Amino acid sequence: MISIGIDLGGTNIKAALVHKNKGFIHTTSIPTNAEMGKKYVFDRIAMAVNDLMEQHDEKPIGIGMGLPGMVSMNRKIVKNPPNLPGWEVERVAEEVGSRTNLNCVIENDANLAALGSARFGAGKNLDSFIMITLGTGVGGGIIFENKIYRGTTGKAGELGHVIIDYHGPLSNSNTRGGIEAYLGQRFLSRFAADTIRQNTDNPLYEQFHRDFSKLEPVDLYHSAREGNELAIQILRKTGEKLGYALVNYIHILDINKIIVSGGVAKAGEFILGPAKETASKLLMPPFVEGFEIIYENLGNDAALLGAASLAFEEL
Amino acid sequence: MISIGIDLGGTNIKAALVHKNKGFIHTTSIPTNAEMGKKYVFDRIAMAVNDLMEQHDEKPIGIGMGLPGMVSMNRKIVKNPPNLPGWEVERVAEEVGSRTNLNCVIENDANLAALGSARFGAGKNLDSFIMITLGTGVGGGIIFENKIYRGTTGKAGELGHVIIDYHGPLSNSNTRGGIEAYLGQRFLSRFAADTIRQNTDNPLYEQFHRDFSKLEPVDLYHSAREGNELAIQILRKTGEKLGYALVNYIHILDINKIIVSGGVAKAGEFILGPAKETASKLLMPPFVEGFEIIYENLGNDAALLGAASLAFEEL
Repeated sequence: MISIGIDLGGTNIKAALVHKNKGFIHTTSIPTNAEMGKKYVFDRIAMAVNDLMEQHDEKPIGIGMGLPGMVSMNRKIVKNPPNLPGWEVERVAEEVGSRTNLNCVIENDANLAALGSARFGAGKNLDSFIMITLGTGVGGGIIFENKIYRGTTGKAGELGHVIIDYHGPLSNSNTRGGIEAYLGQRFLSRFAADTIRQNTDNPLYEQFHRDFSKLEPVDLYHSAREGNELAIQILRKTGEKLGYALVNYIHILDINKIIVSGGVAKAGEFILGPAKETASKLLMPPFVEGFEIIYENLGNDAALLGAASLAFEEL
Repeated sequence: MISIGIDLGGTNIKAALVHKNKGFIHTTSIPTNAEMGKKYVFDRIAMAVNDLMEQHDEKPIGIGMGLPGMVSMNRKIVKNPPNLPGWEVERVAEEVGSRTNLNCVIENDANLAALGSARFGAGKNLDSFIMITLGTGVGGGIIFENKIYRGTTGKAGELGHVIIDYHGPLSNSNTRGGIEAYLGQRFLSRFAADTIRQNTDNPLYEQFHRDFSKLEPVDLYHSAREGNELAIQILRKTGEKLGYALVNYIHILDINKIIVSGGVAKAGEFILGPAKETASKLLMPPFVEGFEIIYENLGNDAALLGAASLAFEEL
């Protein structure tokens, strides 16, 4: 059985022909050109789908598509997706379906990344887990008993906006001291720059003091690997913050398998080690047994594979 | 259809004959005498059950029982319940069942309070809600799509141990800055005493300065009603803390109907008003629509009615 997965972002439309067991058959990626407006984007998606279908004889059972923003409970309509200018309440499944003669379901991309991990990645052998994506922002998806936990309106798992310090810094929402304000890429870079500025004898100061805006989490990671104690300390403090957030997720959900994905997570043990240590200390004892943090290797493919999986499961 | 609900606490065994639609038929309460050991307590429970059955001709379909502590996924075994000395891993359903010739299921008492509210209380018309109990400690239960959300091991909803300030005070767990450390009765009283000590011209200072251990949340409530600004301010700050915790629950679970129960909640609008105001400001906008905080009037009866409801639904 094959389906088509689409990952619609503000920059690129990624699409793939996916086999239910074997995974990717063909993939393609074209620029979204979101500024051309939504009709143009729907046409582009249909074009990508038709391109893929020409690559393969078997007819796909349908299309699953991930996109940012809030998706209706019937998985057909999106509301005000960020990074897609001019989109309001859009009947996306219908627009794509009518252009391709295939049934289409849509879902929030963070939820689909979790589903992709559950079907093809690090979550394959887990019935329930929490996926946290550490990128520009901090997003999340919850898999409970093998299905996406969507909450009452499809918006569950806003893990980046879980408060760990109510008098903490602002991030990209109304929330203050949310975990995104510490682990979002921009916030981590700023925290690192502030710390490095106070340590003018550190090699990172020499490297970045002319333009700290060039400092990215990956630079910290490389420095940490080379034994730079300041970089290790910055990443440790960041990991501790993640640990506090994990305590909150686990105490509420009683799910203690954590899958971590995204660019910032590439700092690996320098962040995840302190996160695990901190959470293990603060969790109520019964939650510690079996508590694990697992790194997801699928990267951006997780959402694409999750989109295709959604088609298998919902169409 | 009738069942028997039991609420086993460290101090009292409460039991009730409950009609599925009409609620309580008969209730009884006897001291637990927990210090006499578990066999004695099981015998006491059986005695209470038999007393109740003599009051009524119709045979109950079975027993649902709430108790503190962690209950196994099959709802038969409890592990290390607090306030019941000498209890370890106990096959409670079996012990009670064999003594009464009735089937028995057990569940954590906070979860059953939520179920009781769902079937007989403020939650009756809600498919999903979060119940938070503000008493000596802060407990919680989650109703999702008309059922108790139990998580992966039956321990979900440890709402009192959700961090709102990672460098905040300790409470009764490993967690630091958890909401229980602000809203638990003892902690609230201590915070109030500290504040009143700095305001020697306030009537509350006059009333309690000889022995601040006598100060209880209810005293703050009464003072607030009489217009004591300091009492109002203490309760407002406490309510704000609750608001931060609500943001965390709602962002994770996407459930924005909150039912509040327990002694501290009796301070009513003085706590719940600021909680609602604070959370409304910090929630991501899509979660604000329909966000409600509702006071549960059932009090301790919620857990007892929930226990009986569990029997109707699981036996």
